[in-house]
Amino acid sequence: MLRAKVEKKPAAESYLLRFAFIDSIILSAHKKISMSDLVNEFNEYRGKMNEKILAQNNKVINRLFNLDTNTYASGALPVKTKEMLGLVASMVLRCDDCIRYHLGKCKDEGITTEEIYEVFAVANIVGGTIVIPHFRRAVEYWEELSGAT
Amino acid sequence: MLRAKVEKKPAAESYLLRFAFIDSIILSAHKKISMSDLVNEFNEYRGKMNEKILAQNNKVINRLFNLDTNTYASGALPVKTKEMLGLVASMVLRCDDCIRYHLGKCKDEGITTEEIYEVFAVANIVGGTIVIPHFRRAVEYWEELSGAT
Amino acid sequence: MLRAKVEKKPAAESYLLRFAFIDSIILSAHKKISMSDLVNEFNEYRGKMNEKILAQNNKVINRLFNLDTNTYASGALPVKTKEMLGLVASMVLRCDDCIRYHLGKCKDEGITTEEIYEVFAVANIVGGTIVIPHFRRAVEYWEELSGAT
Amino acid sequence: MLRAKVEKKPAAESYLLRFAFIDSIILSAHKKISMSDLVNEFNEYRGKMNEKILAQNNKVINRLFNLDTNTYASGALPVKTKEMLGLVASMVLRCDDCIRYHLGKCKDEGITTEEIYEVFAVANIVGGTIVIPHFRRAVEYWEELSGAT
Amino acid sequence: MLRAKVEKKPAAESYLLRFAFIDSIILSAHKKISMSDLVNEFNEYRGKMNEKILAQNNKVINRLFNLDTNTYASGALPVKTKEMLGLVASMVLRCDDCIRYHLGKCKDEGITTEEIYEVFAVANIVGGTIVIPHFRRAVEYWEELSGAT
Amino acid sequence: MLRAKVEKKPAAESYLLRFAFIDSIILSAHKKISMSDLVNEFNEYRGKMNEKILAQNNKVINRLFNLDTNTYASGALPVKTKEMLGLVASMVLRCDDCIRYHLGKCKDEGITTEEIYEVFAVANIVGGTIVIPHFRRAVEYWEELSGAT
Repeated sequence: MLRAKVEKKPAAESYLLRFAFIDSIILSAHKKISMSDLVNEFNEYRGKMNEKILAQNNKVINRLFNLDTNTYASGALPVKTKEMLGLVASMVLRCDDCIRYHLGKCKDEGITTEEIYEVFAVANIVGGTIVIPHFRRAVEYWEELSGAT
Repeated sequence: MLRAKVEKKPAAESYLLRFAFIDSIILSAHKKISMSDLVNEFNEYRGKMNEKILAQNNKVINRLFNLDTNTYASGALPVKTKEMLGLVASMVLRCDDCIRYHLGKCKDEGITTEEIYEVFAVANIVGGTIVIPHFRRAVEYWEELSGAT
Repeated sequence: MLRAKVEKKPAAESYLLRFAFIDSIILSAHKKISMSDLVNEFNEYRGKMNEKILAQNNKVINRLFNLDTNTYASGALPVKTKEMLGLVASMVLRCDDCIRYHLGKCKDEGITTEEIYEVFAVANIVGGTIVIPHFRRAVEYWEELSGAT
Repeated sequence: MLRAKVEKKPAAESYLLRFAFIDSIILSAHKKISMSDLVNEFNEYRGKMNEKILAQNNKVINRLFNLDTNTYASGALPVKTKEMLGLVASMVLRCDDCIRYHLGKCKDEGITTEEIYEVFAVANIVGGTIVIPHFRRAVEYWEELSGAT
Repeated sequence: MLRAKVEKKPAAESYLLRFAFIDSIILSAHKKISMSDLVNEFNEYRGKMNEKILAQNNKVINRLFNLDTNTYASGALPVKTKEMLGLVASMVLRCDDCIRYHLGKCKDEGITTEEIYEVFAVANIVGGTIVIPHFRRAVEYWEELSGAT
Repeated sequence: MLRAKVEKKPAAESYLLRFAFIDSIILSAHKKISMSDLVNEFNEYRGKMNEKILAQNNKVINRLFNLDTNTYASGALPVKTKEMLGLVASMVLRCDDCIRYHLGKCKDEGITTEEIYEVFAVANIVGGTIVIPHFRRAVEYWEELSGAT
């Protein structure tokens, strides 16, 4: 049944799907050596489920996923700033998986621990102590990304 | 101590409690054959804790639990529509357990995967990308309900 | 400066903008006769600001606005159901303007007062008494849409 | 049409409606002398809309409204404590009308300004600086309730 | 009664209060010439209520207000970045007054309209279409700050 | 690197850190005998991560953590009331770890099960059925604290 779905998909969507699939394989292969289980498990589950979701071929959802990626592309503001914006928004909305995703991107952008703590500070002040449990898990994940557990 | 509590409960409350208890046993027995561990574990924990809560006999809580059930009964709108309303509300409020509960009910109502993805689409657009991690877990649970892992 | 912005816009975006502009004029003209001040003011402010936003030509934002419209188009689920999904999501997230927008669409879809109250009931039960003040304003707006003040 | 609705209502619901109606009249009459416009307007709009809502006779909604009242009745905890619980919950959820309602009740319970500020402190620390604008409006309303503008 | 309260305040708190008071006067005087009524009214109400709050001398609240100011001071990240973080957090949490406050600070930091729209884009994608009504009001306020109505 | 950080810390912050460290050891030792694994694991993870966070020496964060503790100190309202306020706020904001923390404190204050259920009732009515899954986990944790599993 899934095969039939894939076949009737328009070219652009199909390409997007394949890209996501290959991307997640490369990502897993590449990161398995240097990264912790916590990081790997998160990336693998995320990749696997995104693939299933895109394969369903709901137009609105696939376009939203595509738009989400474009949002953090370099523009008037650099990627580094946009990723910090995504991180602080995820923290005040208290979404652990979103926090992890943006922490990974922030690490890729070379953001330092001192900088990331200033993002954490804004999130905790704006969002209140209710953010603290997510902050604790964010610190744990950041350390795993840094290989400094 | 729990026994004493049960004894002094008025008839109606006591009946409600027994019903919930028997219901959860039948449910477990009936579903264990065809459903996945994820679905079973969710239903068992939910049944066990609801039973404990109702046994405490706090009037406001027991009435709210009762009212909750009535909310999704057939009326001017059919059960199918009401369960989709419950699902989309649970998704934008990002409550995984509530999502699971309504996905189970939606499956019982014969809602198709294509329909459920349109509910997911509304939830993701209204609630934003912050909903996506819950959406991933919803897709996983929906597949387990469908026996299509 | 705004003129320059408009000129360099790609065809599709420019078309979208013009459509939104004309649409809001027609809407205002058409509705002014039969509708209340509350409804008119809401629609006019909404139309005016959306126009300004689209004119800024931020790709991500313009695509999200476009995607938002597509979300409620007829698909596996009818428009009527999707608008009720949008309404209940707006209520539990307690967004008065979003509630008004979907109430207007629900009225267009011929949803009855009895049906709309069942949507309100789901919203109040799922979202709690914190939804009630928004519920009160929704009732007031629904009456103005119905011309039954 | 409204009349027909009222007639077919069961006795209990009808009684509840009448009580709410008379209550809001007495309340308005009683409070108009000593209270500010801000307080009066809030109470009048609230009373008028609640009456309309109850008249619609949706079972789930009318029972929820009834249950809401019972929640704050004296029990293992005194009314004073329960009203402070309602206030802090309303503040962290940032619902101005809910805050006003519970501030009115707290004033009735003889809660002092020093005590109310300690409730405000918990709300601001738990909910973060995002609560501050609601806190400002709460302080304004509290002063109007105290006749100390 | 207020006078007595002010007198028994420790030196540091009293200084903080006076500073806030003088600051709000200078601010009003300075901005009245170049800014719109919308901006002035917001700043005046905010200044007046903050003053009342600080005068109450609740230790937790006064320290939180002080800490709030420190959060956006230059550190590992520049003020400009921190104000954008505060803005995006305020938008996804849908707090109009917080949005206004940070928009004012962003204008002071020389952030351009193109940059601010990229912050708006992140907020709308992360927080969903529920953010749009706040986005509209943010655009209106930004235009008033820019003197470009 | 951590050592260097600790050395350059000002005296007050360093003291705070050591206190938190010793406190968490004593806490663990003291509670291990009488408490369940669920309670122990929560307290240990919380203690370990708080220590790491404070060691980073971000001024805003360390002050917020300090302020958080002061918020629940005895004042015009007793600790017992403040802890119930913290609990109800945590429940309506649906933060499991915050709920657990305040449940622990409520148990220390001698709050009875009947009283705690009245706090739960307010939380469920104000926050809606979306609170129920957190309520279930709160009941489980409360039982473990009471040694009554």
